[in-house]
Amino acid sequence: MTQAFKLNTQLDKDTHLLIEDENFLILLHKNATIPWVIIVPITDVIEIFELPNDVQKSLKTLTKQIAAFFKEEYSTEKMNIAAIGNIVSQLHIHVIGRKAGDACWPDVVWGNNYAFKKYSQEQIDSVALSLA
Amino acid sequence: MTQAFKLNTQLDKDTHLLIEDENFLILLHKNATIPWVIIVPITDVIEIFELPNDVQKSLKTLTKQIAAFFKEEYSTEKMNIAAIGNIVSQLHIHVIGRKAGDACWPDVVWGNNYAFKKYSQEQIDSVALSLA
Repeated sequence: MTQAFKLNTQLDKDTHLLIEDENFLILLHKNATIPWVIIVPITDVIEIFELPNDVQKSLKTLTKQIAAFFKEEYSTEKMNIAAIGNIVSQLHIHVIGRKAGDACWPDVVWGNNYAFKKYSQEQIDSVALSLA
Repeated sequence: MTQAFKLNTQLDKDTHLLIEDENFLILLHKNATIPWVIIVPITDVIEIFELPNDVQKSLKTLTKQIAAFFKEEYSTEKMNIAAIGNIVSQLHIHVIGRKAGDACWPDVVWGNNYAFKKYSQEQIDSVALSLA
């Protein structure tokens, strides 16, 4: 990284910052209807397969942790994990906990206009704590 | 794997088999409108982060190869890479080449009813050859 890393403004607007470490920003999507974390690797590559292997390994560990938390806290049954980037090109990985009967099931969440529910500060802190 | 691996019938129906090796089935989505490969790891785990690290490394290499091919052959600009599995739970990874102005742009392909175009046998062979 030759320049300071700056989070894309759309991602910034849509999420709460949970954690920032040397490799990633970990963001919580503001809509609590479906549990949804967005991981932003601190990098300027735009494709997930361009990440160094060790960063991909950390990403895997992190995803596992999020999945375990979502399963325990929100009884999710299946994870949707995706790097898309058609609208926001800054590399970001969606980690979404899904279950039968949720607001979008079985469709994907992207492009789906489902109801908005706010997180309480307590809930945000609890997610952050579980991933720290 | 204690039992013989069997490809999900929906995936089988939607795709052409390109390659089968010890770790993966590599499938080409039958709709040629948007270049789309589906990688099915030969496993019974259903989440991508449950794959062993070495299989994930191979998956990364393979994805890179597909992206390079799509870029050269179809001038794609951005890859959409995703493990969803809400409808078909057998683990499968979507590797999709996208570009501005394609039939779904900038939306995701899933749940999007866009026009169908058939691959010629020549084209199928050419994709298979490029990934062999």
